[in-house]
Amino acid sequence: MDAIVEDFALAEGFVATATACGLKPAGALDMALIVAEEPCSAAGLFTTNRVRAAPVLYDQQVLARNPAAVRAVVINAGNANACTGPQGAANCHAMAAMTAERLGCRPDQVLVLSTGVIGRQLDMAKVARGIGALTTPGAAHGAGFAARAIMTTDTRAKVARRTISAGDTPISIAGMCKGAGMIHPNMATMLAIVTTDARVAPDLLDRALRHAADRSFNRISVDGDTSTNDTLLLLASGASGIDVQPAAAAPPLDAATFTAALTDVCIDLARQVARDGEGATRLVEITVSGARDDAQAHQVANAIARSPLVKTAIHGGDPNWGRVLCAAGYSGAEIDPDRLSLHFGVAGSAIQLVAGGLPLEADLAAASALLRQDPVYITLDLGLGTAQTTVWTCDFSKEYIEINAHYTT
Amino acid sequence: MDAIVEDFALAEGFVATATACGLKPAGALDMALIVAEEPCSAAGLFTTNRVRAAPVLYDQQVLARNPAAVRAVVINAGNANACTGPQGAANCHAMAAMTAERLGCRPDQVLVLSTGVIGRQLDMAKVARGIGALTTPGAAHGAGFAARAIMTTDTRAKVARRTISAGDTPISIAGMCKGAGMIHPNMATMLAIVTTDARVAPDLLDRALRHAADRSFNRISVDGDTSTNDTLLLLASGASGIDVQPAAAAPPLDAATFTAALTDVCIDLARQVARDGEGATRLVEITVSGARDDAQAHQVANAIARSPLVKTAIHGGDPNWGRVLCAAGYSGAEIDPDRLSLHFGVAGSAIQLVAGGLPLEADLAAASALLRQDPVYITLDLGLGTAQTTVWTCDFSKEYIEINAHYTT
Repeated sequence: MDAIVEDFALAEGFVATATACGLKPAGALDMALIVAEEPCSAAGLFTTNRVRAAPVLYDQQVLARNPAAVRAVVINAGNANACTGPQGAANCHAMAAMTAERLGCRPDQVLVLSTGVIGRQLDMAKVARGIGALTTPGAAHGAGFAARAIMTTDTRAKVARRTISAGDTPISIAGMCKGAGMIHPNMATMLAIVTTDARVAPDLLDRALRHAADRSFNRISVDGDTSTNDTLLLLASGASGIDVQPAAAAPPLDAATFTAALTDVCIDLARQVARDGEGATRLVEITVSGARDDAQAHQVANAIARSPLVKTAIHGGDPNWGRVLCAAGYSGAEIDPDRLSLHFGVAGSAIQLVAGGLPLEADLAAASALLRQDPVYITLDLGLGTAQTTVWTCDFSKEYIEINAHYTT
Repeated sequence: MDAIVEDFALAEGFVATATACGLKPAGALDMALIVAEEPCSAAGLFTTNRVRAAPVLYDQQVLARNPAAVRAVVINAGNANACTGPQGAANCHAMAAMTAERLGCRPDQVLVLSTGVIGRQLDMAKVARGIGALTTPGAAHGAGFAARAIMTTDTRAKVARRTISAGDTPISIAGMCKGAGMIHPNMATMLAIVTTDARVAPDLLDRALRHAADRSFNRISVDGDTSTNDTLLLLASGASGIDVQPAAAAPPLDAATFTAALTDVCIDLARQVARDGEGATRLVEITVSGARDDAQAHQVANAIARSPLVKTAIHGGDPNWGRVLCAAGYSGAEIDPDRLSLHFGVAGSAIQLVAGGLPLEADLAAASALLRQDPVYITLDLGLGTAQTTVWTCDFSKEYIEINAHYTT
């Protein structure tokens, strides 16, 4: 386990454990439990897919009913509990009930997350054994283990943490997530749980989470598929004793400062998801500037980030910039081809390939080298306004095919 | 060359030649010329990409001005003449002018098609030599050669032909096309030229072509990228002496009969494009039935056809049907997950995997075998209405990555 993952801790007021119950082969960690020492406030964002997994439907009910009194999140990997009908819903409820019984709380204070294969019923004997083990000293204690347990095709655990100060008091925001395939905004196939020890009312927590997700998890794409299980949870324990207040000037911690730090944590996690895209060898950061508004910038950036031709060209280090312009052209945004300019690389050492929609005499060997660095930076200016956005994706390799051609068999 | 391609002929009134001018390496055929013996009527459909290649912009002008007096189509492969600015426009006009001079017609009676790499200026010395050669006895004479000359990453030439009768007179509709990557509705990266010896007025020709394209080329997807050069041309020589008339009962050939045969030819060609998708090993036919209307059926079918996860699962013969339901779920269509039913295979020997949104106890080994046949048939019923549509795509293999990671370098 990476040192950074091994040392990872959630915010004060939360503890995490993990265990292996047999949903994954070879004894790998496959269940995790996050417990709030006291009832905490919570907010969640979920997949926009019309096909929603049982735990997504269940968690939406819990958060509608109990946003200020959540006690735990129980998570399994290896089975998504999606397309599983009434039996799947019953199994999800049973997971919450078993966890609640061990913790001495009500079932509707327990959130449930599942990820893995679609359309198979959970093996509830294994799950029950797992939930039992998660609350014993024999479980693997520590958020780093939980971050590993929720992985599916991820090659590495994904954690991020920031500390901000409210006067003399440090406030932590610390989260973990998983996701590598079936990744596309709204949202990634992705489970993410972010914790904070600030005290935040549910409605403010919800607003902060939407702000952060719009700038992070909703700006990544691996393969354009949006999953049935995407969930992003934010839990606030209040263990620091510091209240987050909506007004900008309010002591001791204003909502804007909190939201900015939360956004930072979510961007950190989202970039890790894109970097660890199935088969990916590097992160690709695509910035669209000079747009009329954010929506236009996002529409163009998203089309580029989703293009298999752009992503395969990056993989091969092929400075085939025409594919970037082509994707911008079919994005649906009302761009003017004659105003486009394109750079590879970061400001300072960037190479400009296109100005006014036309190719420049660029050093293509140097441009190719920029596509082989990690991260890869691509900036397309639309020449229409001042809005700008950034999205993250990854290159597209043969490994993606290898991983996905034989996922269930 | 396949026998079917070698024997291929355009409709009466058209002749075709091909030559190698050096735009492709190793002396491969890379230019083609289709000549109408008399001025013919023509219609065209073009890419919806905002970034449009020089010949697309040029052809749109020609067809607006001269839809009843086209004399020729000159085509090059190896260079798309896209993102080439004023120089590219001038080169396109020069191609038309040189061809017109050889044929003794006006430049605005010549259509121009280009396909290949984006953003490089044409080598006009080679193109001039090619146009010279195309009108000499030394050129390769025959539409089969032209069908080969327009290929880029295609592995085989694509031609189709149908004959219908108007009383005792046979009417031919015969076309060729190319396209293997950067393929997505509206339209494929694709050049297609369809000819007929019926006599059809330009406005009727245009209507027939839109009808046919909506049911063929706009229903295929290889990689979700829409190119800068897509063009579908329909040329009618009238050499049969038979008029196509709009009224259903009108002798000697009604528009509905003509349009149905034209649609048939276009579907034949479009299926060949999907089957020859870059790296593809089989054709995939996706039918969405039980939809509220055609638009809904198309929206769902398109999301499934575009999903890299569905296409990689098919490649691996992995009966991972959850990915099909997942793609339907994020298609944007207002489906009801609990009404979905899913079959693999054709009626008679199909295997049902899902009923009422839930998995059945299906023979997964048999389902896997159906995914390894060519074509693969997938049918998703939405359970909402009676509308139905079919789209075509291909499986997604490592070869796609291999082909596209090093296209220009």
